[in-house]
Amino acid sequence: MIKVGIVGGTGYTGVELLRLLSAHPRARLTAITSRNESGLHVAKMYPSLRGLVDLAFTSPDETRLTDCDVVFFATPHGVAMEQAPELLLGGVKVIDLAADFRFQDKVVFQEWYGMPHSQPDILAEAVYGLPEINREAIKKARVIGLPGCYPTTVQLGYAPLLRQDKPLIDESRLIADCKSGTSGAGRRAEIGMLMAEASDNFRAYGVSGHRHQPEIMQGLKAMTKNRREIGLTFVPHLTPMIRGIHSTLYATLLPEARDMDFQALYENHYRTDPFVDVMPAGSHPDTRSVRGSNFLRIALHRPGNGDTLVILVVEDNLVKGAAGQGVQCMNLMFGLDETTGLIHAPLVP
Amino acid sequence: MIKVGIVGGTGYTGVELLRLLSAHPRARLTAITSRNESGLHVAKMYPSLRGLVDLAFTSPDETRLTDCDVVFFATPHGVAMEQAPELLLGGVKVIDLAADFRFQDKVVFQEWYGMPHSQPDILAEAVYGLPEINREAIKKARVIGLPGCYPTTVQLGYAPLLRQDKPLIDESRLIADCKSGTSGAGRRAEIGMLMAEASDNFRAYGVSGHRHQPEIMQGLKAMTKNRREIGLTFVPHLTPMIRGIHSTLYATLLPEARDMDFQALYENHYRTDPFVDVMPAGSHPDTRSVRGSNFLRIALHRPGNGDTLVILVVEDNLVKGAAGQGVQCMNLMFGLDETTGLIHAPLVP
Amino acid sequence: MIKVGIVGGTGYTGVELLRLLSAHPRARLTAITSRNESGLHVAKMYPSLRGLVDLAFTSPDETRLTDCDVVFFATPHGVAMEQAPELLLGGVKVIDLAADFRFQDKVVFQEWYGMPHSQPDILAEAVYGLPEINREAIKKARVIGLPGCYPTTVQLGYAPLLRQDKPLIDESRLIADCKSGTSGAGRRAEIGMLMAEASDNFRAYGVSGHRHQPEIMQGLKAMTKNRREIGLTFVPHLTPMIRGIHSTLYATLLPEARDMDFQALYENHYRTDPFVDVMPAGSHPDTRSVRGSNFLRIALHRPGNGDTLVILVVEDNLVKGAAGQGVQCMNLMFGLDETTGLIHAPLVP
Amino acid sequence: MIKVGIVGGTGYTGVELLRLLSAHPRARLTAITSRNESGLHVAKMYPSLRGLVDLAFTSPDETRLTDCDVVFFATPHGVAMEQAPELLLGGVKVIDLAADFRFQDKVVFQEWYGMPHSQPDILAEAVYGLPEINREAIKKARVIGLPGCYPTTVQLGYAPLLRQDKPLIDESRLIADCKSGTSGAGRRAEIGMLMAEASDNFRAYGVSGHRHQPEIMQGLKAMTKNRREIGLTFVPHLTPMIRGIHSTLYATLLPEARDMDFQALYENHYRTDPFVDVMPAGSHPDTRSVRGSNFLRIALHRPGNGDTLVILVVEDNLVKGAAGQGVQCMNLMFGLDETTGLIHAPLVP
Repeated sequence: MIKVGIVGGTGYTGVELLRLLSAHPRARLTAITSRNESGLHVAKMYPSLRGLVDLAFTSPDETRLTDCDVVFFATPHGVAMEQAPELLLGGVKVIDLAADFRFQDKVVFQEWYGMPHSQPDILAEAVYGLPEINREAIKKARVIGLPGCYPTTVQLGYAPLLRQDKPLIDESRLIADCKSGTSGAGRRAEIGMLMAEASDNFRAYGVSGHRHQPEIMQGLKAMTKNRREIGLTFVPHLTPMIRGIHSTLYATLLPEARDMDFQALYENHYRTDPFVDVMPAGSHPDTRSVRGSNFLRIALHRPGNGDTLVILVVEDNLVKGAAGQGVQCMNLMFGLDETTGLIHAPLVP
Repeated sequence: MIKVGIVGGTGYTGVELLRLLSAHPRARLTAITSRNESGLHVAKMYPSLRGLVDLAFTSPDETRLTDCDVVFFATPHGVAMEQAPELLLGGVKVIDLAADFRFQDKVVFQEWYGMPHSQPDILAEAVYGLPEINREAIKKARVIGLPGCYPTTVQLGYAPLLRQDKPLIDESRLIADCKSGTSGAGRRAEIGMLMAEASDNFRAYGVSGHRHQPEIMQGLKAMTKNRREIGLTFVPHLTPMIRGIHSTLYATLLPEARDMDFQALYENHYRTDPFVDVMPAGSHPDTRSVRGSNFLRIALHRPGNGDTLVILVVEDNLVKGAAGQGVQCMNLMFGLDETTGLIHAPLVP
Repeated sequence: MIKVGIVGGTGYTGVELLRLLSAHPRARLTAITSRNESGLHVAKMYPSLRGLVDLAFTSPDETRLTDCDVVFFATPHGVAMEQAPELLLGGVKVIDLAADFRFQDKVVFQEWYGMPHSQPDILAEAVYGLPEINREAIKKARVIGLPGCYPTTVQLGYAPLLRQDKPLIDESRLIADCKSGTSGAGRRAEIGMLMAEASDNFRAYGVSGHRHQPEIMQGLKAMTKNRREIGLTFVPHLTPMIRGIHSTLYATLLPEARDMDFQALYENHYRTDPFVDVMPAGSHPDTRSVRGSNFLRIALHRPGNGDTLVILVVEDNLVKGAAGQGVQCMNLMFGLDETTGLIHAPLVP
Repeated sequence: MIKVGIVGGTGYTGVELLRLLSAHPRARLTAITSRNESGLHVAKMYPSLRGLVDLAFTSPDETRLTDCDVVFFATPHGVAMEQAPELLLGGVKVIDLAADFRFQDKVVFQEWYGMPHSQPDILAEAVYGLPEINREAIKKARVIGLPGCYPTTVQLGYAPLLRQDKPLIDESRLIADCKSGTSGAGRRAEIGMLMAEASDNFRAYGVSGHRHQPEIMQGLKAMTKNRREIGLTFVPHLTPMIRGIHSTLYATLLPEARDMDFQALYENHYRTDPFVDVMPAGSHPDTRSVRGSNFLRIALHRPGNGDTLVILVVEDNLVKGAAGQGVQCMNLMFGLDETTGLIHAPLVP
């Protein structure tokens, strides 16, 4: 059994890790830390886990995480990089759900997250935890920086178009119009996320700049051959639902690509990826079709058979967009089948 | 493997059976019929099941259900009783999610469901599928009439008080104020259940008479020693959520019972029932704490330490209130552990 | 024009006062104070009021509220009683939306609100602002303590039964099972009220004791002739919607009352009250039927023609349950028609 | 008083007309027809209108609409054009909320609505009821074809950019990513619009072709000088809320326009339009900020100060997107101030 620790398990990605790991046949939760809730039984905070998780939160200062095989950080950015050196020294693998190990360039991290990166060496060795793109590197990694929730959808949505020797689309004018449920904002007391504010309501946010934009840009660029320049407009929206991201991606086909069979391109590209489902052409995936599961669904449209390709992508932001992807990486890192403990039928209705 | 057939699998209890059975380690779905959707692949109607359920709906007339070990009826009332004789003759067990086999008295069935009962003999042998009350009978049953969603909560909420030699409460004045999500109305096109009608809105319905009232009455009476008379006011309400029932039950303590420890009474009563969770006194269970799971949670309150007991009960109406309870019965009928394939952590948030 | 001041206008009852008063033909908003938001334009915080309210929040210390004719307090309890003496001295009427002037007995206030009452003399003269019960007293009042949102529904729901010379019902066993939208919790950052927590979810709260319980008890008792004793079990629930309260009230008829025509009793009782709508017998009022309006609707049921009366009551908690009722009182206090500026068609759908 | 008739008032745009007109100081509802609900009192179907609308639905065959001054058609397409000739002959003005009089070209109508246009002459004289674009023509019109809900937002969002002598943006690559509440689908029993299907869920629809696309194209083209060619990708999405549209519009600036002050352009353009609110640059309008009102709010963003302009537009689809715009047109047609009876503070929260 893989001995698993979780640092900061009181938020939504934390409780989602608990939900997934409590049913994982090859993992055993051994510690979960929380500075504020130390001593509290997990099931006291989350009655949904009564009888399923028999652990109490412990103080980070008094918890020997080095006994674990792997530690997940479900903390704000800045925490994982402080604790990673000791864990790695002790032979413990690290999977961070925050941004500490997402960026190849520490300057970009500092610019968008407002703090210098204290562990550039670890950053240099960290692997971006998107299995469909980096599977082999993940298998060998000691440190994983898990992608953000939006970036997972946008990168997997554009990947088959960008991972080509020559451009198929106008790569300088990508548009990602993304909609997320409110759990994406985390379990933080914030007036704008109150039910009385956010329900029966819809709005964009961060249009002038959002931290996921440079992360997506980095990922898209890395996919192209010879790291071609990418131009991306990214507009996130807050949607009155709990879970789910729906990303509507736009691409302008280059003249030389207009006769391609994009449906076949996508189906081939994801043929061996167990969690990516390319739906029949013309489908309209809905977010509930992945609710509670690690699946990500994609559908292609080409309105009027013109030169605009519309790519619809859905995921559960807490699963494929966070905790589930983390478990998927863990499986790979420990030589398990990628899907171990992750095949749940989505909850519909 | 238990070979399972489902008749009428296009509604919400049907798709919930599919979700649960597709992950059941000892059951194999072999047939699912639908008159209207014959030929349609299940995953076409429910994309959430893509890759998980590889079956198409077949016409009831052309499907040999007698090859199954058990058949679930997720149909309107009146269907199961027509098909049960042939199945039983073929040695197939029957679990009906509708009302055909819920009533001991065929006259009550006819009065509330508007049709005569065509199989009084089968009705006489059928077992009411509430494992916490009828476990031993269920194990030996050939035909199960599964309880309605509301009746499960009300009966399990009052059971420890009623299953006593002498009355503890004024049994002539029970009040069950129940709230259900809209999935309880089924997957039927109905204006009142439209999102634009039912969301951001709350109302009672059926206050003057609801089919679950006589079913609850029958169950409560059967629990008492010597079948004492029961008086119950039952008021169901439509709540703007998808899944979940919250029943708020009121009981007036008799003078001789005022010193009892009801918390202990309940904990003892349900000590060995894996799916009933008696929470600490003073808890407020919320419906999401059982979302997607077969658990039912109960909490007791005694405001001002007076003579009114308030019992709060939550369940997922599609799981413990329907499909999950059906699978629980199936497990018992086939000698499996009651929890086989049914331990899911509820989906929170 | 009535010159109106609002103290503490940043919460939900505050913005609702702004919405109603901005369209009131006989009132003019002259000041709105907020310690935290001083200097901020109201429409900056509430873009919905752009072009409709041209005021900025001002510091309470620098605002001469004594120039107003009436001041509304949309503040936490404890604020209005501190400021009332000076205002009354300056000839300004006071309408408090919090609890400072709701209780006849200062001891009860202290017990439930955790602070001594600093102005017992003003408390003694204050009038409980429920126009359907206290209309004449309100007309002459200088200080109004507005009812809480739940108490308005429960009191108006039971009033026709209790305002009788002799009891018609068992007044020792009233049960009020009440459901409120989340705006009732106010505009406060609180994890339990986040959309990701409170939506698609339902739960009771405060079952062991809620501040509205003694307020309701006081009101119900005051309605009876000779102040008869009342027994009430009050269970509030949090409902996944923004606005609205649905109270389901239960009463046991005394034998001598079983032949009464309760429908006629209610219709007669409220015949001249413009905002109370007694619906046809057997109706199921929904909360949206009063959304955004000052109406309160009541419907009566008597299941099985037995001795239990079920009274369904709906209101918009922010209007008839708070700001609208305040404006209704203001109208009465200034000799206007009670409905001035308050006839809005509810927003459906 | 303007005597107003409504044909087909049982749907959402119908009840919204009733809500608005019942409070209109210069209009009087005189007839409302419905083939299915003939004889039913309006307030029976919509209890929210009890005491406010004292009318019953009448059969279209027995209703003398020629006594009205104006008749609104809140019917499916195809109805208004059949009845318009007789009404016009009787001197009655016609405002159609459906598509009968939206298209300049009857061929386009037939192509998208699947029926030939029976009144090409009336179509030729009809005015497209978008006051901010066609105010003078509306004042003189006898027949109005009101814009669809999406088209109102997209046209008003792009108008200041397109109503220029020379192109400012790449007019061949407009992208309108639009999100609508479920009331936009009308009050029709449809499984996909059930609360249990549409809530806590998000999806695109009609990506391959939607009837509003040609309508928007026609409108945008008409705005340009010399009717320049327009290319538009239009993707509508279903959002789990009742009312509201949020359109996110994308435009690529031409090199010669990069130094323009677009904020000033928009503010100037809409300076005299009472219902269009250009918010401060960088705002994120939310749909609730216009809930229940005829306002439409616009905010501009230019991410990274690059060459992509993002225009955010919100409206209430039933008000500015339908019934409110109809009343606005009626006001203009009868020489009233455009805002008469239409200034409502949006309902927040």
